[in-house]
Amino acid sequence: MSKQGVTPQSENFSDWYNEIVYRADLAAKSPVRGCVIIKPYGYEVWEGIKGGLDRRFKETGHQNAYFPLFIPESYLRREAEHVEGFSPELAVVTVAGGKELEEPLVVRPTSETVIGEAFSEWIQSYRDLPLLINQWANVVRWELRTRPFLRTTEFLWQEGHTAHATHEESHEETMRMLDIYADFAVKDAAIPVIKGLKSNIERFAGALHTYTIEAMMRDKRALQSGTSHDLGQNFAKAFEIKYLDEANDLQFCWTTSWGLSTRMVGAVVMAHGDDQGLRLPPKLAPIQVVAIPIYRKDEERGPVMETLMPIVDELRAVGIRVHVDDRDQSPGFKFNDWEMRGVPVRLEIGPKDVEKGNAALARRDVLGREGKQFVSQEGIVKTIQDLLDEVQASLLADATAFRDANIHDVATYDELKQVIEAGGWARGWWAGSDDDERKVKDETGATLRCFPFDHADAGSGKCFYTEGSADQIALFAKAY
Amino acid sequence: MSKQGVTPQSENFSDWYNEIVYRADLAAKSPVRGCVIIKPYGYEVWEGIKGGLDRRFKETGHQNAYFPLFIPESYLRREAEHVEGFSPELAVVTVAGGKELEEPLVVRPTSETVIGEAFSEWIQSYRDLPLLINQWANVVRWELRTRPFLRTTEFLWQEGHTAHATHEESHEETMRMLDIYADFAVKDAAIPVIKGLKSNIERFAGALHTYTIEAMMRDKRALQSGTSHDLGQNFAKAFEIKYLDEANDLQFCWTTSWGLSTRMVGAVVMAHGDDQGLRLPPKLAPIQVVAIPIYRKDEERGPVMETLMPIVDELRAVGIRVHVDDRDQSPGFKFNDWEMRGVPVRLEIGPKDVEKGNAALARRDVLGREGKQFVSQEGIVKTIQDLLDEVQASLLADATAFRDANIHDVATYDELKQVIEAGGWARGWWAGSDDDERKVKDETGATLRCFPFDHADAGSGKCFYTEGSADQIALFAKAY
Repeated sequence: MSKQGVTPQSENFSDWYNEIVYRADLAAKSPVRGCVIIKPYGYEVWEGIKGGLDRRFKETGHQNAYFPLFIPESYLRREAEHVEGFSPELAVVTVAGGKELEEPLVVRPTSETVIGEAFSEWIQSYRDLPLLINQWANVVRWELRTRPFLRTTEFLWQEGHTAHATHEESHEETMRMLDIYADFAVKDAAIPVIKGLKSNIERFAGALHTYTIEAMMRDKRALQSGTSHDLGQNFAKAFEIKYLDEANDLQFCWTTSWGLSTRMVGAVVMAHGDDQGLRLPPKLAPIQVVAIPIYRKDEERGPVMETLMPIVDELRAVGIRVHVDDRDQSPGFKFNDWEMRGVPVRLEIGPKDVEKGNAALARRDVLGREGKQFVSQEGIVKTIQDLLDEVQASLLADATAFRDANIHDVATYDELKQVIEAGGWARGWWAGSDDDERKVKDETGATLRCFPFDHADAGSGKCFYTEGSADQIALFAKAY
Repeated sequence: MSKQGVTPQSENFSDWYNEIVYRADLAAKSPVRGCVIIKPYGYEVWEGIKGGLDRRFKETGHQNAYFPLFIPESYLRREAEHVEGFSPELAVVTVAGGKELEEPLVVRPTSETVIGEAFSEWIQSYRDLPLLINQWANVVRWELRTRPFLRTTEFLWQEGHTAHATHEESHEETMRMLDIYADFAVKDAAIPVIKGLKSNIERFAGALHTYTIEAMMRDKRALQSGTSHDLGQNFAKAFEIKYLDEANDLQFCWTTSWGLSTRMVGAVVMAHGDDQGLRLPPKLAPIQVVAIPIYRKDEERGPVMETLMPIVDELRAVGIRVHVDDRDQSPGFKFNDWEMRGVPVRLEIGPKDVEKGNAALARRDVLGREGKQFVSQEGIVKTIQDLLDEVQASLLADATAFRDANIHDVATYDELKQVIEAGGWARGWWAGSDDDERKVKDETGATLRCFPFDHADAGSGKCFYTEGSADQIALFAKAY
């Protein structure tokens, strides 16, 4: 047990995760099967994620809209692969307003179909293209095994849906959005992600190609953290999304969709957390600096607060999110509490600091004496800003080093088995069939996470499984 | 027909509204009964409303959270009035994951019950109070007659839910949030609202008291634009929301809830719009300034754009939302189009303006020659900022004058009938029973909108209906 009474990661990562999610007040259990309540501390992380993405979407010309929660059942059936993929997971409204409905309504598991129908009405000519729409919404997928943030029956996400005149343009869009997800993950969430193409088996139901960003958690499992789909003309044909081109010929559009969900909150927890609790990247931390007044006697409180509060005001004035913990608890209790909640920087001021014009700063990413420094109150806002930047960079560097140390190149199936068994990611030449891929999964528990872009131009080599010639490198790992 | 081919308000306000909502691209029809698609232009108005409210909520110590979409049917039954009020409007999921559910799940019509259950677990002692939570969410009420934004089966809203130690505190909170709604309506939406208490009949199902902000639309109908409920201990008792007080005695909490929805988008349309279309208050307008380059010959385009674009950049740099309309259409077409969409200010630059260092500005709230001015490019950013402030203030002044001219004091039931028939609001002393109130509604179509605060201290007088002594003044109007 750690100081927080939390199961250590090394003992049982899954228990650690569940305990920390509830202990750090990110979520609470709900009375509804498979759903959690996202508590304010968790919701603020999500608001940070939303803010970071929404800005990037708007900068690249996308606009938000809102489509109905309910989808007529007949719509889902129009794209064959799509309905097959989602049917087992649907929640269905059969009664409304006190009456049995003539056509049941599905609670959206994703909105390709209802948006496809809308696009078919909104798009007439090439002048209406590209159409670049995003939606922030809740969706429902009836999952059997659920875990807070990672897999819940209802979750929050954004789903982008775009239509284009040519495949070249829709492919470009698919890549642009994947790049935006990666840029957000790296710069805001401090999570290094690997961009790549999904295999046939792991492709979105109805897509031509699915691209993914894959992240390594601290237990070395992979987490698919965002996906971008080149839908080809599948939905355009199913929903008759057509446009008149410049020569006045009727053409089917090319569409894309892309989504990132509250799963990203789980990624932040599992990519950075340690046995003391969360370690939140400053850009997403609801509280970036916790300010703790230190005093033993009541008469010390006044001078300490008089020194502390102007600094707090200055920090807030430059946009730093500060919380002052003035609870009637010991400093030790507070330190542990805020370490557990992953606040990046702790600011302490005691009677001696008041006298000397000093303050103590402790960083969450480096616990203990090494992470603590005594600084002058002079210029402390700049000192703290720099420290927040440093913590942000160091979390990314940590996660990158950890990931790179745990990806291993494999030349044979035996090597892959060893790597997977030891809990790493295996990377190797792959020319297997869909069935081969399923066999690898059945035998090792590892799935083909993606064909990583950073190895896309590697030429060709011998497939570690079929031993035939392969022209692509694949990443395998156990995954969430 | 107006220039836009829209039915004039005076001819048929309802047709005008429906046409303008779709023509101005605020919403689109959806394939799902009673639901609309909120298109980007309408959604941006909603984003403005969200932003204005969310800031005010956070400044007063509220935090956002997210609760499940589905509510077990048994929860709704726990508060007797509540379930009775909502039962006819519920949408119910009976099948999920391919199976019949043991207990049907209701799609939330509002979240008092599921949040009540959560609060009962989260609150233990007086130290946990007050608990101040807000949720941005979609809700579903199976309405028979629907209209875009005003009444739809699914709508977007925020619902605040708070718990307090005493009734004094919960009452204060109820009033604080009503004040925030009114402040937002007046300052951001430029809609003068009347704050008041709802009658028993119009009270929220399960509340002790419901307070409202009532706005007058351009057809003189009332629109309830936001409500704040003092729930007393009704939900605390139904869900056992209890706390240990400082004397270690177990007490029931006092709770509140308050909500404002996408209905406010409809309010903005109907409070300001005219026969030419929308008139959007600058604070909520997705586009505050539309910049239109004027030229006849192709060779004029270059110099015009070279003059226009630096001004556009300057405007954007100070945070003004500008759209440049460089479509291959006539200026007249563009003027009409943006007038219909309610853009507050139009900026025109033509070849002569380039020569003379001038520009033309037209304000949407005053059409024609009177609303147009020719200004120097020198200091134009400040000129436009001031003009936007002026438009914002003038829309509020217009709506206030219109409202005040259409509220009439009545001393007898005959007078009320005349006022209502002529399409105004009637204000008078009221001591009627619930049944009397229903009779007035049946006979005149008018409902008791509220007991307005600004007449709460008026003393007493003779009820216009019962002719008995009354100690409160009531407002009656036909309403949406």
